[in-house]
Amino acid sequence: MNTVKDGVHDHIALDPLAEALVDTPAFQRLRHIKQLSTVRLVYPSANHTRFEHSLGVYHLASQALDSLGVRDERARHVRAAAVLHDIGHGPYGHQTEDVIMRHTGEHHDEIHDLLSGTEAAAALRDHDCSPERVADLVAGDGELGQLVSGELDVDRMDYLVRDAHHTGVPYGTIDTGRLVRQLRVRDGELVLAEGNVQTAESMLLARSLMNGVVYRHHVSRIAGAMLERGAERIVDGGVPIEAFRRFADHDLLFALREHAPTLGRRIEERDLFKRALWVGQETVPAGVAEFPRESIREAEADVAERADVPEEQVLLDVPSLPSMREANARVVVGGVVQRLETASELVAALRAGERSRWRLGVYTPGEHVDDVASAARDVLGIAEKDA
Amino acid sequence: MNTVKDGVHDHIALDPLAEALVDTPAFQRLRHIKQLSTVRLVYPSANHTRFEHSLGVYHLASQALDSLGVRDERARHVRAAAVLHDIGHGPYGHQTEDVIMRHTGEHHDEIHDLLSGTEAAAALRDHDCSPERVADLVAGDGELGQLVSGELDVDRMDYLVRDAHHTGVPYGTIDTGRLVRQLRVRDGELVLAEGNVQTAESMLLARSLMNGVVYRHHVSRIAGAMLERGAERIVDGGVPIEAFRRFADHDLLFALREHAPTLGRRIEERDLFKRALWVGQETVPAGVAEFPRESIREAEADVAERADVPEEQVLLDVPSLPSMREANARVVVGGVVQRLETASELVAALRAGERSRWRLGVYTPGEHVDDVASAARDVLGIAEKDA
Amino acid sequence: MNTVKDGVHDHIALDPLAEALVDTPAFQRLRHIKQLSTVRLVYPSANHTRFEHSLGVYHLASQALDSLGVRDERARHVRAAAVLHDIGHGPYGHQTEDVIMRHTGEHHDEIHDLLSGTEAAAALRDHDCSPERVADLVAGDGELGQLVSGELDVDRMDYLVRDAHHTGVPYGTIDTGRLVRQLRVRDGELVLAEGNVQTAESMLLARSLMNGVVYRHHVSRIAGAMLERGAERIVDGGVPIEAFRRFADHDLLFALREHAPTLGRRIEERDLFKRALWVGQETVPAGVAEFPRESIREAEADVAERADVPEEQVLLDVPSLPSMREANARVVVGGVVQRLETASELVAALRAGERSRWRLGVYTPGEHVDDVASAARDVLGIAEKDA
Amino acid sequence: MNTVKDGVHDHIALDPLAEALVDTPAFQRLRHIKQLSTVRLVYPSANHTRFEHSLGVYHLASQALDSLGVRDERARHVRAAAVLHDIGHGPYGHQTEDVIMRHTGEHHDEIHDLLSGTEAAAALRDHDCSPERVADLVAGDGELGQLVSGELDVDRMDYLVRDAHHTGVPYGTIDTGRLVRQLRVRDGELVLAEGNVQTAESMLLARSLMNGVVYRHHVSRIAGAMLERGAERIVDGGVPIEAFRRFADHDLLFALREHAPTLGRRIEERDLFKRALWVGQETVPAGVAEFPRESIREAEADVAERADVPEEQVLLDVPSLPSMREANARVVVGGVVQRLETASELVAALRAGERSRWRLGVYTPGEHVDDVASAARDVLGIAEKDA
Repeated sequence: MNTVKDGVHDHIALDPLAEALVDTPAFQRLRHIKQLSTVRLVYPSANHTRFEHSLGVYHLASQALDSLGVRDERARHVRAAAVLHDIGHGPYGHQTEDVIMRHTGEHHDEIHDLLSGTEAAAALRDHDCSPERVADLVAGDGELGQLVSGELDVDRMDYLVRDAHHTGVPYGTIDTGRLVRQLRVRDGELVLAEGNVQTAESMLLARSLMNGVVYRHHVSRIAGAMLERGAERIVDGGVPIEAFRRFADHDLLFALREHAPTLGRRIEERDLFKRALWVGQETVPAGVAEFPRESIREAEADVAERADVPEEQVLLDVPSLPSMREANARVVVGGVVQRLETASELVAALRAGERSRWRLGVYTPGEHVDDVASAARDVLGIAEKDA
Repeated sequence: MNTVKDGVHDHIALDPLAEALVDTPAFQRLRHIKQLSTVRLVYPSANHTRFEHSLGVYHLASQALDSLGVRDERARHVRAAAVLHDIGHGPYGHQTEDVIMRHTGEHHDEIHDLLSGTEAAAALRDHDCSPERVADLVAGDGELGQLVSGELDVDRMDYLVRDAHHTGVPYGTIDTGRLVRQLRVRDGELVLAEGNVQTAESMLLARSLMNGVVYRHHVSRIAGAMLERGAERIVDGGVPIEAFRRFADHDLLFALREHAPTLGRRIEERDLFKRALWVGQETVPAGVAEFPRESIREAEADVAERADVPEEQVLLDVPSLPSMREANARVVVGGVVQRLETASELVAALRAGERSRWRLGVYTPGEHVDDVASAARDVLGIAEKDA
Repeated sequence: MNTVKDGVHDHIALDPLAEALVDTPAFQRLRHIKQLSTVRLVYPSANHTRFEHSLGVYHLASQALDSLGVRDERARHVRAAAVLHDIGHGPYGHQTEDVIMRHTGEHHDEIHDLLSGTEAAAALRDHDCSPERVADLVAGDGELGQLVSGELDVDRMDYLVRDAHHTGVPYGTIDTGRLVRQLRVRDGELVLAEGNVQTAESMLLARSLMNGVVYRHHVSRIAGAMLERGAERIVDGGVPIEAFRRFADHDLLFALREHAPTLGRRIEERDLFKRALWVGQETVPAGVAEFPRESIREAEADVAERADVPEEQVLLDVPSLPSMREANARVVVGGVVQRLETASELVAALRAGERSRWRLGVYTPGEHVDDVASAARDVLGIAEKDA
Repeated sequence: MNTVKDGVHDHIALDPLAEALVDTPAFQRLRHIKQLSTVRLVYPSANHTRFEHSLGVYHLASQALDSLGVRDERARHVRAAAVLHDIGHGPYGHQTEDVIMRHTGEHHDEIHDLLSGTEAAAALRDHDCSPERVADLVAGDGELGQLVSGELDVDRMDYLVRDAHHTGVPYGTIDTGRLVRQLRVRDGELVLAEGNVQTAESMLLARSLMNGVVYRHHVSRIAGAMLERGAERIVDGGVPIEAFRRFADHDLLFALREHAPTLGRRIEERDLFKRALWVGQETVPAGVAEFPRESIREAEADVAERADVPEEQVLLDVPSLPSMREANARVVVGGVVQRLETASELVAALRAGERSRWRLGVYTPGEHVDDVASAARDVLGIAEKDA
């Protein structure tokens, strides 16, 4: 078997199907999609891509399948799904997910259409694999689909350690070797074996700490909001959504030069907007946190008008709460399968922590910060002293 | 400045006083005291000693003092205290702490007597430092004493990353660089600067995960209980406590050959007792968890008699709950100094986790497990099905 | 001081001037220039950029200056030069060096013109630094210029460890802490202190091993040759060289779409040419290895015609021998400054190794390999059996 | 399969035989034998033992066997030999090798006698393995014996990376994954596949750099010479050699307290002799470098008498040249198996380097350095100025 050398997992041995899939344009495109999009503006060494991440997920999936005793064509399908699990991502990954979802109705892990008719689908068939079944696994169907996309999936195992390696922030460094070896299948569900409540907690803790320090860093969020706004302009400007979702990161930068040149320049040169407002949940009126997109755009227009600032220079960023999907991870405790949330009091505490770190942001160029802050308070109904 | 190469912090530059202290017999003895005593029986690469740990603590203290802007003789005293903070440990560190405490009334961080009249005290005076003041700092006195022994001390920062490096268990890998840079002094207390609730949490989480997987691993506890019993025999057998507390690890192994040869051989060859009982807090009668030492010895004798096993082959291990001293770490939140316990819901959840992982153990040679289990249930009043 | 978190050196503290320089467009552009250009097509996690590399060089320069006792404005100039040392690189770094050199006559470390009139020059003046003097240091002038660009410069120290970290190939992992501490200035030259012949050798060995396995990997060389050909087309196609040399990596990819779309697609999708010829020095006629660029282009045209293949599909790649600049590194041996080449027999042996690994390559799409191989042998005068 | 967590290779899965062997007293003893004996007096974190090293060798052997396609009982024998390959070492490993050899005529890899009649031999037979055949493999017999003890053995692969991890000196960090995957069997010899001259060189280079900086550090050599002298006293003092060679490190320390108390105290407290003489090959008369042991003892006595120093306080240390066994490693070059020495000019250069770093040492307590230096010059015939 050929091997690829990886900075995180060292040598990764590729089976023949994986090798064929890696050579397809759909997969090579992932070389040009950074794993952490705008996080590199905070952590400059975080330039890793979904390409090597996908190889890492394949590697951990192979280890897990070995440990679970799954072989032959079942295993081959799962390994193929691991390789392909991220090909549905648009440029800058999660940052363009909403735009694509609004226009296509499809989430990044729905790759049935994307696969059909491609070289990747042909490669799968050449190796006696069904593209449909692989797409099902990517969507998380079945007990082995949970290995690719689920509460205990190898996707998050890889990204935690990989993001730690490349940012230099150690919190993500979990024990993937142990996690992978402790997986079991019980009643059609992927679970962790007896004695692994802490193993499950460690993954949840790692993600929670990485959320606070890395994934939700305010500089990355500002740049992300700018990118998202730029992406909308591109699509509104006439780039077909099917073309857009196949963009690589640099295609998006290029389209920005045409459709939103100022935003584009600012992003490339890291000349970012600043925070006019940055407020926690307790001071944000209930309705605001649930604003649909139209209300957000209206509020932005409103703020811009009051502050006498061009509309495109006001961004309202209302994030959802982190999902904590791992809370549903299943662990065997005293012989009984339990959801982690039941087995561990940590889950509720981490939820509380995430809530307390939640922030609504309003961003604008540095020179407008004061005007926009005041206008935004008025429009959103946020009292003075909580800034 | 001379440097020492360390597996964890790379080059550690020693100031002249540190160099002089390192050369004294009191400090060289730490080469022969393993940092994690019996943990190496579970994690075979965990053979690191209090010698290099102490150098690491010195290194982090130097960084913290630089960042706090503390210089000259105040800094020199603190750095000396960092070097010497562990010279009060007996052989096998925490494992002989109780025996020594019972006979001398002194805890390992009370080193006033130990220092007096030694080469180390002379070295301190040669460099215009007061041995008394250094001993005070080791005991945690004053705001800078908290840096050596306190809720935010560099001692635990070093041991977490060092134990992770040597066991291979990644959970202890905290961001010491960030911790050290975020320290501040506020109203005579060492605190973490604004925006560091998660930084403080990360240290607590690391220790909690390391507790479960490393520090309180049952194999290490069994060997520890055997060692502790052996230590008692040595002292009861006539070795003066002042000599005993100056033992190195191998002195203890040697004394065992004379005073408790079977225990000694078992420990050296890792031919350990097995768990006859291993039960959680909910099934242990309230009184048992608070047994003073005499009651424990009585219970052991009782069990041995009922099971018809030699008294020295029954060990009852009733651990205290982990202290979670970090819960009292102070963090600035919204301009106000708060205890971490107030600022974070995680603390209570971690406490609950520690409680749920607490186990009382009864250990005996493999061939007596059944008999001893049944006798111990009777003696301690523990119902059958909870084993 | 603000710090940046780096995957290699952990926290890097930036002085105020460094912070100002980092914020300029000239420096932010380095975010978009990969350190190892086409090496990522072999080592997929090698996506690091000249941005974080430059911060790393700044960090090591700071350490070296501390160790050398250089302070204040002399140190400030050197640190600034370390930050800016790579801003003269064109897109894809060394891969476009020849094209730019041919059209501008300037090497990447000649940044006098590039600096003048920029925000970076203004920032330097704001902090009482002379842009000219900084540019001189970048060019390697003076004993401290040698620290930025010379046989013992911190540039190579950083890239060796960084490339090792990101490729996963351990050979580059040198002991930067030791190197930096052992630097001395003797008679206006930067040297390594007594007892460091092996320290110097270790750097040379690291680079030699990295050359063979990483920097000169044939896949990277093929992609590099394609890129270089594409770059020529872009410049020949009318993009002004002054604009071209300011391109980021993605600007080059985009320009390829217009000026050499097939090459561009092949590079983005890693659909690379194959080796038609790959022969060592002993079989290449003497003249060929010294071919000037025009002769190379002529030979390519010749081969293409004979093989009946479009001219743009034949690439002749005649690399120079690695420079081994480290051979001139100075080390104190027995109190006398010696060049490493004199002090160590390794240098000659490594030269021999580099020569034996030298390969001339002829590349073409897979389907033309046989035809092109045979035509190339004829044109270049290379006998059959050595392929 | 049970796994052991290792600081270097992470999880190591043990087959049932390996697990049984690990539990025997002969193997548990290796917990108490440090891998690098006196090197820890220079690199304080280098406290790793032959226990975890042996597990690492087992791990790499398993990987190599997988890659070579060797299975079942052949593989089982080799894996068992990997586990047991170091049980023949005396206390402090290589430091007592000469003493043991002189009295028993047996080298540490001759374990036939040692195995016979032990629990380990029984465990082997229980798993259908022949103790004799395992002992043959440990001695390096046969093509697979070369995997355990030979020019390309997994023993040196493990110790290089492990010693690097624990000392913090990066030079030993070779690419074990690549080495293990590139092994082939050709005509009954273990060789590296085509294209791996540099892979072989990397191992040789790593060892050469580690020799200079770690293994032959003068402080470690001084302590080693003291230990060796102490060992002789113990054996001369009546401890039977068969008991002595089964000692653990701490047994030796304890025996020193009886048989050579001053030396023992000095070693435990790192109160070492100093160098009275430290001279290179060019100034040492030809005969001296080949002195048999008796001549060394005579010379020491002579020097002591002339310098009027107690005989036990003069140590003459005449090391052999490093063996460079790797020079005979076989690599396929152009389809032909070549010895590395033939394929690479590096080997000769490294030999020259080793020769130039060779030093004869005479050690004595600090206060006698001048007297002993002058006496030693006279006795050995070494001119003044070369000290």
